[in-house]
Amino acid sequence: MLVYIAGSGAMGCRFGYQISKTGNDVILLDNWEEHIKSIQENGLKITGDVEETVKLPIMKPTEATKEADLIILFTKAMQLPQMLQDIKGIIGSETKVLCLLNGLGHEEVIRQYIPEHNILMGVTVWTAGLEGPGHAHLQGVGALNLQSMDPENQEAGRQVADMLTEAKLFATYDENVLPNIWRKACVNGTMNSTCALLDCTIGELFASEDGPKMVKEIIHEFVIVGEAEGVSLNEEEIVKYVFDTSVKAAHHYPSMHQDLVQNHRLTEIDFINGAVNTKGAKLGIDTPYCRLITQLVHAKEEILKIK
Amino acid sequence: MLVYIAGSGAMGCRFGYQISKTGNDVILLDNWEEHIKSIQENGLKITGDVEETVKLPIMKPTEATKEADLIILFTKAMQLPQMLQDIKGIIGSETKVLCLLNGLGHEEVIRQYIPEHNILMGVTVWTAGLEGPGHAHLQGVGALNLQSMDPENQEAGRQVADMLTEAKLFATYDENVLPNIWRKACVNGTMNSTCALLDCTIGELFASEDGPKMVKEIIHEFVIVGEAEGVSLNEEEIVKYVFDTSVKAAHHYPSMHQDLVQNHRLTEIDFINGAVNTKGAKLGIDTPYCRLITQLVHAKEEILKIK
Repeated sequence: MLVYIAGSGAMGCRFGYQISKTGNDVILLDNWEEHIKSIQENGLKITGDVEETVKLPIMKPTEATKEADLIILFTKAMQLPQMLQDIKGIIGSETKVLCLLNGLGHEEVIRQYIPEHNILMGVTVWTAGLEGPGHAHLQGVGALNLQSMDPENQEAGRQVADMLTEAKLFATYDENVLPNIWRKACVNGTMNSTCALLDCTIGELFASEDGPKMVKEIIHEFVIVGEAEGVSLNEEEIVKYVFDTSVKAAHHYPSMHQDLVQNHRLTEIDFINGAVNTKGAKLGIDTPYCRLITQLVHAKEEILKIK
Repeated sequence: MLVYIAGSGAMGCRFGYQISKTGNDVILLDNWEEHIKSIQENGLKITGDVEETVKLPIMKPTEATKEADLIILFTKAMQLPQMLQDIKGIIGSETKVLCLLNGLGHEEVIRQYIPEHNILMGVTVWTAGLEGPGHAHLQGVGALNLQSMDPENQEAGRQVADMLTEAKLFATYDENVLPNIWRKACVNGTMNSTCALLDCTIGELFASEDGPKMVKEIIHEFVIVGEAEGVSLNEEEIVKYVFDTSVKAAHHYPSMHQDLVQNHRLTEIDFINGAVNTKGAKLGIDTPYCRLITQLVHAKEEILKIK
């Protein structure tokens, strides 16, 4: 099949690279000029668990013309509507769209551009880093879960899962993927925003006396809102998952720290804690921790003049 | 009368200096060695609206022996119990104690050391800066309100107010000082903690889209807890007062920013937002904004290894 990676940052490069090793065609899409130029001139450089440079086509989203069999969405959350707008030309009646973005509520955006029976929602624990234009650093293993949004169209999801597993991305078709998406959002909603605000590593947050208290209150808000939306969430299991993740990732600064503190870029807060607060408000559920965290992050974006 | 200043930082120096210009005797108490040494050797240097160096006795709290007529408490909030312990020897049956600390709940601490009829609670809008050991910078004007905690003993409070007014500190005897203490706590609870967390000036906080939203939610929590404690608070008036203050102080970093960010010192958060959360918990009132802010500030203190 012809697979586009819509948003070829670190994770997009990992997926594009691994899928290109199968019999499928891959085209990377991105808007970062230097990244495009570097990959067009020198290929995509991979370091980490393997060291290799591969030739892969890359272009701007608006330049793509061949109809896609599969589009994997890997943009930053706030770039999603523009990306969907830009790739209209490659979306046919049978084009499947797999969303692997962090955060909550993306299906509502995607539905405006893609018919429900072609939408696949997923969540992945793969990681990747970008060392510079055209250079991805890939270490460790991961997996992903995905589901067709239309329960009548499971077959499409299972085919995509098989293809991704062939690419050693280890995809599982998941008849109930939403709890997994929410669980990952809990990881992001507890560590990303707080470590960005406190300018600390995940380990420093969890080692402090008050860090775990905040984390538990945030998870509680995610759970009551998710449950009210009909997503079945096990609070105790999520707390354990988040704390286990914090141990594995103790020495890392989460991605929102990289965005806000290190690179002075806009954050995805509106799609994590902000999404819970917005959903909560609609459902009549107060989520003050998520709201205050969202307000603090937005205020910091303004203070740093990136908003 | 013999007046001790218990805690001779910037504000203590202002009060000690101005009272020493009246017919009363002043003794400064402090624990900062270099500050004591500098004032003992060279006198207290005053710059700003006046330029002068005055001889004033200064010693450690434990070294004071002469019974006090009045003790003005000007420590950092968390140093208050130790100070009261250290000055036991100068507290006689008629010694009045005036508390001018920032924050809430100090009367409960003071009551453990001083009989109710000798306690005066106050709040001041005077400001002062310390340029270094033995050097206070005094600019602008201010005033203070104070009240006897024992309503049967107003006379003691009125005498102290008269003496302070004679010292041009412009004290008013206030038959209901608690609303003023809470109003000042609202200023501190909205600007100090948030500007410390966001590393910004008061003006930057209030200029951001979300800053004023946070400020209003924090004030609301102070008001509902204060009201539940029997303090009559006008939320609308307090919001206006806080916003007016933010305009006047726009270019300043508040004192908690100086403590946490600039000097890596412990903050007074437990006596401001933390006090509201503790009081709220006892009253069955949830104050998530105050609680999360307190948790974030404490986490930051730990991350900076100052806790």
